[in-house]
Amino acid sequence: MDTQQKSLQKHEEWQGKIEVISRAPITNKEELSLAYTPGVAAPCLAIHEDPNKSFTLTRRGNLVAVITDGSAVLGLGNIGPKAGMPVMEGKCALFKTFADVDAFPICISSQDTDTIVDTIVNIADSFGGINLEDIAAPRCFEVEKRLKEKLDIPVFHDDQHGTAIVAGAALINALKIVNKQLADVKIVINGAGAAGIAIAKHLLAMGAKNVILADRQGLLYSGREGNNDAKEEISRLTNLDKQKGTLADGIKNADVFLGVSAAGAVNQDMVRSMNEGAILFPMANPTPEIFPDEAIAAGAKVVGTGRSDFPNQINNVLAFPGIFKGAISVRATQINDAMCMAATYAIADCVKQELLSPEYIIPAPFDKSVAAKVTEAVAKAAIDSGVARQ
Amino acid sequence: MDTQQKSLQKHEEWQGKIEVISRAPITNKEELSLAYTPGVAAPCLAIHEDPNKSFTLTRRGNLVAVITDGSAVLGLGNIGPKAGMPVMEGKCALFKTFADVDAFPICISSQDTDTIVDTIVNIADSFGGINLEDIAAPRCFEVEKRLKEKLDIPVFHDDQHGTAIVAGAALINALKIVNKQLADVKIVINGAGAAGIAIAKHLLAMGAKNVILADRQGLLYSGREGNNDAKEEISRLTNLDKQKGTLADGIKNADVFLGVSAAGAVNQDMVRSMNEGAILFPMANPTPEIFPDEAIAAGAKVVGTGRSDFPNQINNVLAFPGIFKGAISVRATQINDAMCMAATYAIADCVKQELLSPEYIIPAPFDKSVAAKVTEAVAKAAIDSGVARQ
Repeated sequence: MDTQQKSLQKHEEWQGKIEVISRAPITNKEELSLAYTPGVAAPCLAIHEDPNKSFTLTRRGNLVAVITDGSAVLGLGNIGPKAGMPVMEGKCALFKTFADVDAFPICISSQDTDTIVDTIVNIADSFGGINLEDIAAPRCFEVEKRLKEKLDIPVFHDDQHGTAIVAGAALINALKIVNKQLADVKIVINGAGAAGIAIAKHLLAMGAKNVILADRQGLLYSGREGNNDAKEEISRLTNLDKQKGTLADGIKNADVFLGVSAAGAVNQDMVRSMNEGAILFPMANPTPEIFPDEAIAAGAKVVGTGRSDFPNQINNVLAFPGIFKGAISVRATQINDAMCMAATYAIADCVKQELLSPEYIIPAPFDKSVAAKVTEAVAKAAIDSGVARQ
Repeated sequence: MDTQQKSLQKHEEWQGKIEVISRAPITNKEELSLAYTPGVAAPCLAIHEDPNKSFTLTRRGNLVAVITDGSAVLGLGNIGPKAGMPVMEGKCALFKTFADVDAFPICISSQDTDTIVDTIVNIADSFGGINLEDIAAPRCFEVEKRLKEKLDIPVFHDDQHGTAIVAGAALINALKIVNKQLADVKIVINGAGAAGIAIAKHLLAMGAKNVILADRQGLLYSGREGNNDAKEEISRLTNLDKQKGTLADGIKNADVFLGVSAAGAVNQDMVRSMNEGAILFPMANPTPEIFPDEAIAAGAKVVGTGRSDFPNQINNVLAFPGIFKGAISVRATQINDAMCMAATYAIADCVKQELLSPEYIIPAPFDKSVAAKVTEAVAKAAIDSGVARQ
């Protein structure tokens, strides 16, 4: 039985991957009177007097909503809210497993930006943070931006920032191996959707100077016909020479390739055209832009993919559990750039210098030490950047 | 330490009365690939092909949302969404404890009817049922009505129907004790909000003929100045003689009094003015309209309250866990009158004829047999009335 069949069978057994249990024992009259009426009036009134107490007297202090509109689920595309739920439940299971963060999945049955934003704003008082998931670009940018303006709890689109943080961490360590500096390297990103644009912005924030994005139309440059707002915005910060052409044109003399695009987008000739010590992160799932063995055979020095069956898996699970845990542990009002940066370096630091190798630039997903280190670094960054409430 | 202080302390310890856990083990690469990518694509696609599979491949089949706008929380009134959360979490804990139904609390930060309805509709695909809670009348009627029209999952406002069902069950047994028939008795209900109106409708559906409601303005009659739509509608079905006056006027020669109003609304003289074998359910919480000992001393035969420290506690927990469990177990598209009626008789039947007494007309909240019997009766009624999907 293959993984898909086995997963379907497991899902039939599980009848849901999350479960809501009671933390309060209710086995007799007295316990009922404490957990519910009449005793429950006391925490209600305490929160009414001081709304911040909702973080300690209810589950809000450890509770994240995982929210999608079902418009860009995995590589499956726009399959809608009901069909997107298994992914959201899986994400919630990961939150709990990796960082003991309670997460609850909500699938919104509208793909209208205003409706998505309003719906989330209307239920946000029930949560301590909002993890957006699998919302198609460019809608996801607007949804996240408006929610950040309206809400005083962390809002984080994992497909953008989670991917950028983990790829950034992997790149820090890969550059050590080839002995290059981030400010000096030419970086090409294939895919200019949510993840590609977020990676570009994050690498620029980390100190990269020379970044070029490409999409199905080829290299992205400012003023290119058909650019949406998000593409136009990022193209003003990247490809400053306004190089035109295909991905094959852009990748020439590049030092780093990051792919968040589609199977087979890169061939061996393209790898051969890159600078010596080429770093490739072909992260398309399940089939990468180029397979590691092919890339290595064509001269690549370090390769990381999204897959667990090759070395250097660039997996968001290294980031989001600790990022939210760190943010909510200090009741941060947002997840800002400083916190994302702190998470990036914390993940990179999990690979001990003496163990660093082309096959080990990023910790394994089941390295239990990662979430705790990310949590600590993110909480500290929240405090230092003045967005912590305690 | 009194109950309120002790409850506050317990809430500080619990840090939330619900918790979201993972049902899927994720301890190694293979388990990760089954619960999440890439395997999770299989259940996503299965639901995309047949949306009904969302009830078995995700938690939807056993999951109820407990939703409030915080406008009528307990007797505390309009304390808002954050402060209402401890009650909603408590309700969720009861769902899990009494019927193994997963329930998740959502507090909506708007008290506008359109916004409440739209928000719930937009997130309804994530749930198998909607339990509305502590929404002020008359808004609650409109919210419930419109949700029932728009959604194909059960929608149930517990403050209305749960209270009506349990009070109805208690009345069935109380009437056996005084040897009277429901169709013959005069029933006075004090309180014409969500619960009072729902009780009146339910008793009429059960076969009562002579019901009079009262509110702070006195007896309710059709055409009374200031009647809102809900009051006008129920007044056309009750008080057919259009009696005017105070509660004291209405209660004269009544056989049954039900109170969902305020402490002290009934005095001993009023009880003395009732017919012999008077039944009183003063259900105001925490202080009833009249205390049982006072009512008995003034001639009442059977008294039930909302409190656990007197006999005959009329507690919604006898109804809602089993009602939802029964409805979702057959994937009912709604909770209809037949199902509410079945729940009423199932609860009444839990009191064995030979044990029936003025102090035992309704099962105790912790009688474990109740939820199972209600579940069975409600599921059967759903099937028989044609609203079950399986």
